[in-house]
Amino acid sequence: MGMNILVAHGGGPTAVINCSLQGVVEAARRSGQVDKIYAARFGAEGILKDDLMDLTSVIPAVVARLGDTPASAIGSCRRKLTDADYPAVLETLKRFNINAFFYNGGNDSMDTCHKIDELAKREGLDLRVIGIPKTMDNDLVLTDHCPGFGSAARYAALSAAELALDASALPIHVVVLELMGRNAGWVTAASALAARLTNCEVLTYLPELPVDEDKMLADIERAYAKGNGLLVTVSEGVCGPDGRLLADTGIVDGFGHTVPGGTAQHVADAIIQKLALKARAEKPGLLGRASIPYVSQVDRREAYDVGRTAVEAALAGKSGYMVSIEAVRTPNYQSSMGFVPLAEVANAEKKFPQEWVEGGNKIADAFFDYALPLMGGDLPQYAILR
Amino acid sequence: MGMNILVAHGGGPTAVINCSLQGVVEAARRSGQVDKIYAARFGAEGILKDDLMDLTSVIPAVVARLGDTPASAIGSCRRKLTDADYPAVLETLKRFNINAFFYNGGNDSMDTCHKIDELAKREGLDLRVIGIPKTMDNDLVLTDHCPGFGSAARYAALSAAELALDASALPIHVVVLELMGRNAGWVTAASALAARLTNCEVLTYLPELPVDEDKMLADIERAYAKGNGLLVTVSEGVCGPDGRLLADTGIVDGFGHTVPGGTAQHVADAIIQKLALKARAEKPGLLGRASIPYVSQVDRREAYDVGRTAVEAALAGKSGYMVSIEAVRTPNYQSSMGFVPLAEVANAEKKFPQEWVEGGNKIADAFFDYALPLMGGDLPQYAILR
Repeated sequence: MGMNILVAHGGGPTAVINCSLQGVVEAARRSGQVDKIYAARFGAEGILKDDLMDLTSVIPAVVARLGDTPASAIGSCRRKLTDADYPAVLETLKRFNINAFFYNGGNDSMDTCHKIDELAKREGLDLRVIGIPKTMDNDLVLTDHCPGFGSAARYAALSAAELALDASALPIHVVVLELMGRNAGWVTAASALAARLTNCEVLTYLPELPVDEDKMLADIERAYAKGNGLLVTVSEGVCGPDGRLLADTGIVDGFGHTVPGGTAQHVADAIIQKLALKARAEKPGLLGRASIPYVSQVDRREAYDVGRTAVEAALAGKSGYMVSIEAVRTPNYQSSMGFVPLAEVANAEKKFPQEWVEGGNKIADAFFDYALPLMGGDLPQYAILR
Repeated sequence: MGMNILVAHGGGPTAVINCSLQGVVEAARRSGQVDKIYAARFGAEGILKDDLMDLTSVIPAVVARLGDTPASAIGSCRRKLTDADYPAVLETLKRFNINAFFYNGGNDSMDTCHKIDELAKREGLDLRVIGIPKTMDNDLVLTDHCPGFGSAARYAALSAAELALDASALPIHVVVLELMGRNAGWVTAASALAARLTNCEVLTYLPELPVDEDKMLADIERAYAKGNGLLVTVSEGVCGPDGRLLADTGIVDGFGHTVPGGTAQHVADAIIQKLALKARAEKPGLLGRASIPYVSQVDRREAYDVGRTAVEAALAGKSGYMVSIEAVRTPNYQSSMGFVPLAEVANAEKKFPQEWVEGGNKIADAFFDYALPLMGGDLPQYAILR
């Protein structure tokens, strides 16, 4: 008799979370040690409701297509499990004779993963628990970076470059681009690459650095006056000196996080009203985590590998760890898979280093030394004629 | 002595307007009949200010890169020339000994083109004037479609599919996507392809059909209640029964057009407030015309060909025409280049056929028979597991 495994997704999908799912399914099949491959439909919700999908017989051609499929092919949720939920989770795991559980998510999911591992150990269950990292925000600790970040960063950088070229080709307005990232500015920082790719003016604002709106507007006015058009990129989570979001929707999600949004529109309105310039706000929003044509091939490969490695580790008896990515950047970028104890990653958050921001709105070379290899390497070369 | 040619861009760039520029430059070089290749810096503004760029010696490798360069590599403007401007335009053309003028733009630009041609004929100038069509809106008459539309449609369709999958994988909110298109719904209609690519619920609203907001909200509530998530796609130009924009910015641009925007946020707010559902609005905005990774290869090839054909026609002595695209769709899509008199395209507008909209928010197969070949053919196949 082989093992039964269960995989679940937690939180917002990334452009490559299905690559990790593909890695899980293909590694399980290759091992010859797995009887049943289950997936929780809509993450923790599915586990609580005994709503598991049986992926054991999905044909290989469909599994192979997961790598080009955005969002989560098995569904996810934002429900954060409470202490009262764990007995029901364990019941489901027992009922389906699950021997290995893989939770693919961010900080909150690693916390859940850790608690399930501890509970199973306490109850003497034969259950291996491995966390598979995922977050476009790149804010998990003890891993060089997170699967999903490289693609979101590539999206931010190339979209910003495309908008910067548009803004400079028809310099009738300041263009403000809002990018996702509640508390961590990693993705928004990547948008600053637009300045290097295009020679256009780009100002970038991250949630880690409180923004003085008067100084911001003065900087915008000065940059726009150069006459080459201007792109301003802002994280949805940008705050003022009082620590409050520049634009506050007042909405709170299921994890108790305030939902940000409307920051770009807020900045565009201020430009129109206080500087008497034209401005428009663009907010691709969820497209920043769902767009397949902008996927980083490095990110895609690594996302597959964290899924594959999780299964191989569980089959080898490991439990209570998250797969991590270890990387070297010189002379060439190379990454390999490692493991960190779940207890050490749960609920911790890796913030963007403030010393990588210069003058409040320029991103230092050190960030690009770190992030460029993750964005896929093959960056566009534009024809710059003007 | 060969000829001197001048090319200018008018209005908003598309993802492939630089392909047309590449076609112009490469056809001029291949002909052996062109001495100087000039481009107006920032369109009509550059012509009025004698501000021409000399592209004659740009190295071929840079010209070849134009096809992957978003926005306009020579710059554009929204200035609509008035009768008082034309003498200065003619002066510039004479000063640079221009023998052929190519204006690459939409309705307004074809009107300008027509007037320059008439004036030159009246003054007995040796000037050939050819219009090169361009508009993501697809609203030029007497051409099967417009270069720029296929890529914008592909962007709308694939972005909508990606968002629909995200909305159905984590069905905690209604996602509303706003797409460009002031008066013509061609691009927004393409977003309805998301329903075919994903089996998700998609409702689509175009500027051509007045929207009753109560009925819209009732339809949204019913579609969301199916539990598979919901994507609502809206054109920025959607109006109510009174003919006014659902969301009115009150801003007027240089052509006297009202600037729309905020329609998706308006609909999302109504969903939150009147249906008590969660909703979020996404507005990629200018990315819908600037994104290179979503470019349709068919659109790219045709955009090159309209530029090339314009030069070949002018060198053969033609003047007063716009290059048009003629297409057959059965048994396979094939297109060829034609010509229509500038007088007949100037200021006319091709609206989306109302009979292609079913029940106010579904797009008929007839539209996709028309538009799918223009979107590049190779559509993604997603892994649908749930």
